[in-house]
Amino acid sequence: MTTRRMKSAPEPSATADPGKPLDGRESQLLLIARKLFASNGFDRTSLRDIAEEAKITKAALYYYFPNKDALYERVVLESLETLVNVVSAAVAEQKTPTDRVLAYMRASADFLDGRRDQWLAGSNAFWQGPQNERRQMAIKLRDTYEKMLRQCIMDGIVTGEFRPVDAGMAGRFLLSTLNHLARWHKPGGRLTAHEVMEQFVSMALYGLVATPAKG
Amino acid sequence: MTTRRMKSAPEPSATADPGKPLDGRESQLLLIARKLFASNGFDRTSLRDIAEEAKITKAALYYYFPNKDALYERVVLESLETLVNVVSAAVAEQKTPTDRVLAYMRASADFLDGRRDQWLAGSNAFWQGPQNERRQMAIKLRDTYEKMLRQCIMDGIVTGEFRPVDAGMAGRFLLSTLNHLARWHKPGGRLTAHEVMEQFVSMALYGLVATPAKG
Repeated sequence: MTTRRMKSAPEPSATADPGKPLDGRESQLLLIARKLFASNGFDRTSLRDIAEEAKITKAALYYYFPNKDALYERVVLESLETLVNVVSAAVAEQKTPTDRVLAYMRASADFLDGRRDQWLAGSNAFWQGPQNERRQMAIKLRDTYEKMLRQCIMDGIVTGEFRPVDAGMAGRFLLSTLNHLARWHKPGGRLTAHEVMEQFVSMALYGLVATPAKG
Repeated sequence: MTTRRMKSAPEPSATADPGKPLDGRESQLLLIARKLFASNGFDRTSLRDIAEEAKITKAALYYYFPNKDALYERVVLESLETLVNVVSAAVAEQKTPTDRVLAYMRASADFLDGRRDQWLAGSNAFWQGPQNERRQMAIKLRDTYEKMLRQCIMDGIVTGEFRPVDAGMAGRFLLSTLNHLARWHKPGGRLTAHEVMEQFVSMALYGLVATPAKG
């Protein structure tokens, strides 16, 4: 059972400004922004907080990020985009619906293990953040992520591999375990998020009840 | 499938002051406090917010609740206490571990349907609130609630009704669906929390996979 510590997406992100290479200071500021959004939420983090943590002036910060909207794009949208890319790549490698659901949940747990601040920054900000087209993009990315899981479940119902459950509800059921995991799981604990997810997804696929008496 | 609109616990609570009967104003203030704690969290609600919402002076509010600690006791502790009482009564009526798990999850979902503000006020405040013996009591009540579910699962493993899973993890697995439900479920939606839970608990007990290939 491996916990992949994933590097930043090697490809330039669609939401990043391709004309502006990522310098060391910019990376550092993004790390700080992620950390603060992850622990305090997007709405409760100010540009001043980020400047103070980075030990630079607000004017220097403005050179990189003129406002919080720019940070929303670089932190929240890029995080969701990476999640969608990583998980869809993992799912695409698998042949059966059961294996695709397993791959989806494992890749998501790996994201939580390897990019915890990005996950938390993305999900904390999801319910906050600006009410504009950037937020619409975030909602669209989250929808893409969730639809991918529903599709795996619907495929499994069609092939007869899964029981004829409500695929939307089954998606919520599986995502509950993941979303809640992000709230209680602490890095450096007894088990990685990946290891916890192995147990959860086995329970979800095969049930707690030993004797199959399908209800 | 019924959604029981439960009344307040008929017995005087262990945490309430038995010498002080609950008058109309006090009930109104508790309703307002629950509502504000539920929507804004405990830490972000001030006594001034509650007085303003109730259209009374802060001095009048102090007559009932001299400080936020007193409100923590009446809102958060009473909510947790009622949850423990209601759920343990439902569990005690059942004979098999499977039925006890079902009863636990259904009674908890009924609590969410019927006492949504109390549930949210209790769980929002759980991570905030005063760092004192009242909070220790809240943690103890929450532990009692969670241990009840673990016990049902351990009983089921012993009788062979459940697979030999990690009972602690299985408890977290089931509670994830419930805790997450409280975050996304909206009252007045297509399904009650109870109806959603019927689907979730069936998936958790019998699994998504149709052909039993116990993993």
